[in-house]
Amino acid sequence: MTETLISSATREVVIGFDRPFVIIGERINPTGRKVLAEEMKQGDYSRVEADAVNQVEAGAHMLDVNAGIPLADEPAILAQAVKLVQSVTDVPLSIDSSIVAALESGLAVYRGKALVNSVTGEEERLESVLPLVARYGAAVVAISNDETGISEDPDVRFEVARKIVERAADHGIHHSNVVVDPLVMPVGAINMAGRQVMHIVRRLREELKVNTTCGASNISFGLPNRNGINGAFLTMAIGAGMTSAITNPLHGEVMQAVLGADVMMGHDPDCARWIKKYREPVAELAAGSGRKDRPRRRRRA
Amino acid sequence: MTETLISSATREVVIGFDRPFVIIGERINPTGRKVLAEEMKQGDYSRVEADAVNQVEAGAHMLDVNAGIPLADEPAILAQAVKLVQSVTDVPLSIDSSIVAALESGLAVYRGKALVNSVTGEEERLESVLPLVARYGAAVVAISNDETGISEDPDVRFEVARKIVERAADHGIHHSNVVVDPLVMPVGAINMAGRQVMHIVRRLREELKVNTTCGASNISFGLPNRNGINGAFLTMAIGAGMTSAITNPLHGEVMQAVLGADVMMGHDPDCARWIKKYREPVAELAAGSGRKDRPRRRRRA
Repeated sequence: MTETLISSATREVVIGFDRPFVIIGERINPTGRKVLAEEMKQGDYSRVEADAVNQVEAGAHMLDVNAGIPLADEPAILAQAVKLVQSVTDVPLSIDSSIVAALESGLAVYRGKALVNSVTGEEERLESVLPLVARYGAAVVAISNDETGISEDPDVRFEVARKIVERAADHGIHHSNVVVDPLVMPVGAINMAGRQVMHIVRRLREELKVNTTCGASNISFGLPNRNGINGAFLTMAIGAGMTSAITNPLHGEVMQAVLGADVMMGHDPDCARWIKKYREPVAELAAGSGRKDRPRRRRRA
Repeated sequence: MTETLISSATREVVIGFDRPFVIIGERINPTGRKVLAEEMKQGDYSRVEADAVNQVEAGAHMLDVNAGIPLADEPAILAQAVKLVQSVTDVPLSIDSSIVAALESGLAVYRGKALVNSVTGEEERLESVLPLVARYGAAVVAISNDETGISEDPDVRFEVARKIVERAADHGIHHSNVVVDPLVMPVGAINMAGRQVMHIVRRLREELKVNTTCGASNISFGLPNRNGINGAFLTMAIGAGMTSAITNPLHGEVMQAVLGADVMMGHDPDCARWIKKYREPVAELAAGSGRKDRPRRRRRA
């Protein structure tokens, strides 16, 4: 029953085994978005603000904020982005950088308890990121690779995760504040990538008792109808026990997969969220009311 | 690694733990289809034939054939429907009736090894259906209810399934020829219905080592966007180990959920079936490429 609480100044989100799945919006990230990168570098955050508002409207429970722009002052830009996003939305944030100084400057201006994205099993990362997470009382995403790279063996990735959880404990960080990313490979290249994730997620939940997250859209890299694959992946991963994902809430199929999976897990009481989202307008209901809509029953002989 | 082989005169389908999910088309069933019921009663099977062809074209691996029409000669109609369906398609069939005499007349004309749909844990059904299954060397769907009705406790339903598997063995029917239907309840009424199915499917697979099937669309009874719920259910059930379903292959979202789940399970080598189904048409590729140096592809006139 592990629960990871993340907060803004006014709102709390809980990632947990018996909670609805938490969607962390991935859009505020200049990687691969040239226009956004250039704007952020020039101090224009209008697109960042729009991305924040749109993702929350689409159903994101949290937002990831990344400012990874080559040759730019990432600590300053990330801090500015965090401040602006917190001024236009009240959802908690994941502060995302591979530069420790940028994580620190983001945490310094953040109001609430942030999710730090991320630490890996690399010695240098463990010793630089974990003290920061402890000092700010934050939670942290633990990515299951180390100096040797990303293992194709999910059990090796599990052991990297175990090491990070143990090292976090050494720094006074409870395992409920470590959210493990088991690393999602493209299923087009590694056909067992989906099963690997289900396997490691079950182990993470049962043995380490940690919450989990992932960059969900990696799974569909190189394939047609990516949202269809992303939806299938998320649904099955949620069935295996995954509790959050960094993904794009603007894709209807992805949101439908998550909401449907919440229904299947019994995490949408009375299916209220599903019904609110998908109920037909009254006119359509009336037009369709002549249809037989009842479970198929078997006749008894 | 249990495998259930079903066949027509010329084609075999294997339901199995390490096989792509088997879709059994549900449309040839007059329950709730007044026009079809009337036509079948009058000896007009044109709609049955069209339903057969359309479902196979849409991706059904097998077809369920049901002739449950009140006050009609069900044994004669079911036998006729089975013969006609076998004349227009070569997929194996599930012969579906609650009347033992109808199952027998369907089996008598069937060419191949059929799936008999179904036996329950009721004493009278066990003793009338299982001898028939044994005599024809068929496989059978075992529905996990008995004289006491359908238990809301999935572990009670599991015990009913265990009883049917044991009784089948007494009749010389190997457990690989018993495909258990754990019974799917509407999740709108019983919020834990999805989790119940995952739980019982895992137990059926690990403890009884049997294949599984279900009437998938029951899960979404009473909810809006039923195909979205059906897709989430099928994806998660496949992740839990379900190996076939009686469902409607004409619904694109249902087919996408099954094909996506096969990819996730590693049951679509090189994602070849997914790519074939969803790759963009050549014309769209060319229009969207923006590049002049793309190699020309052969187009069909």
